[in-house]
Amino acid sequence: MIKQQTLQIQTRGRGTYEITRQVEQIVHESAARNGLCHLFIQHTSASLILCENADPSVRDDLEVFMARLIPDGDPTFEHIQEGPDDMPAHLRSILTNMDLTLPISNGRCALGTWQGIFLWEHRTHPHQRQVIITIQGD
Amino acid sequence: MIKQQTLQIQTRGRGTYEITRQVEQIVHESAARNGLCHLFIQHTSASLILCENADPSVRDDLEVFMARLIPDGDPTFEHIQEGPDDMPAHLRSILTNMDLTLPISNGRCALGTWQGIFLWEHRTHPHQRQVIITIQGD
Amino acid sequence: MIKQQTLQIQTRGRGTYEITRQVEQIVHESAARNGLCHLFIQHTSASLILCENADPSVRDDLEVFMARLIPDGDPTFEHIQEGPDDMPAHLRSILTNMDLTLPISNGRCALGTWQGIFLWEHRTHPHQRQVIITIQGD
Repeated sequence: MIKQQTLQIQTRGRGTYEITRQVEQIVHESAARNGLCHLFIQHTSASLILCENADPSVRDDLEVFMARLIPDGDPTFEHIQEGPDDMPAHLRSILTNMDLTLPISNGRCALGTWQGIFLWEHRTHPHQRQVIITIQGD
Repeated sequence: MIKQQTLQIQTRGRGTYEITRQVEQIVHESAARNGLCHLFIQHTSASLILCENADPSVRDDLEVFMARLIPDGDPTFEHIQEGPDDMPAHLRSILTNMDLTLPISNGRCALGTWQGIFLWEHRTHPHQRQVIITIQGD
Repeated sequence: MIKQQTLQIQTRGRGTYEITRQVEQIVHESAARNGLCHLFIQHTSASLILCENADPSVRDDLEVFMARLIPDGDPTFEHIQEGPDDMPAHLRSILTNMDLTLPISNGRCALGTWQGIFLWEHRTHPHQRQVIITIQGD
């Protein structure tokens, strides 16, 4: 059994957005008991991560770390047509992930206790993002 | 055909632990000839990597590089409840992977000659880690 | 339905090589309408990425960033048997990806408008690289 659907996420600019609940809902509706849930973001300036979901300071620290590792407006970047956050957004996406596969067990994503699924918007302005979810299972 | 099982790995603290043999054993028992083997770690402070498996100095260099990139006890981190290695462990996990999918060909993981599968423990203390393995194939 | 085949890519040394067209051709020949396309590189010194495919300066900036983050010939590396690019190639591969899974929708990889699939050769000399492609779908 293969089911596919698209999740639309409106971001408010750079930051992490939890989508665990929406993904779990799609898994629930698929009626798959055991299998895999694949997530794919159709963009090169936003990514998908699993992150500690209890203490929001983890995600604040993520932003601070990435801003230091890949500074906006770095003068060595040539690809700056869309602004100082353009090339950093591509680099942040490549260093994290545009795809993610999760096991489904007993009709649910088999996440660890502290794992949440997050869309990470790397552009400073708000964007409409599309995540394709493909479920395989029996 | 979908089969799923959990692998328990007891770590002795920060470092890499080869799990290739255990994964190959599970693939063998599944009787899948061709398909995919998905690995998922249910934690946010340990990760899964493919790494050169012949010269152990590769994995020593990995540790040195990561310790320099994401120093334990970095004063910019706010999420330090569990110690100086707490936030670095989350960052190391996000920069590497919590999931991994390998092809199965002729009943075996189709790894390259020098590829081994490793669990990378990022916390300094020993932990019990769970890896869910899902096999699809015919 | 599971189909598997190997793509051979001859590189001319360090740099990114677009393989979108070859992957799309294999998906087309598989006749899968909806499903997943999994790519796996059987090496630890080259990787697979999704990257902006319109402006080549993005990939120039990627190289400049990685060369700064992981300098060739870094004296802290012990694993240098094959030269100053040896350990950097392993690190670059681990920080990006050796596997990639893409959704197939209506018989094609459901890539975003600006997403291309690239093999990233991290060694300075030319290499023959093997990518195993596994297609699941109906």
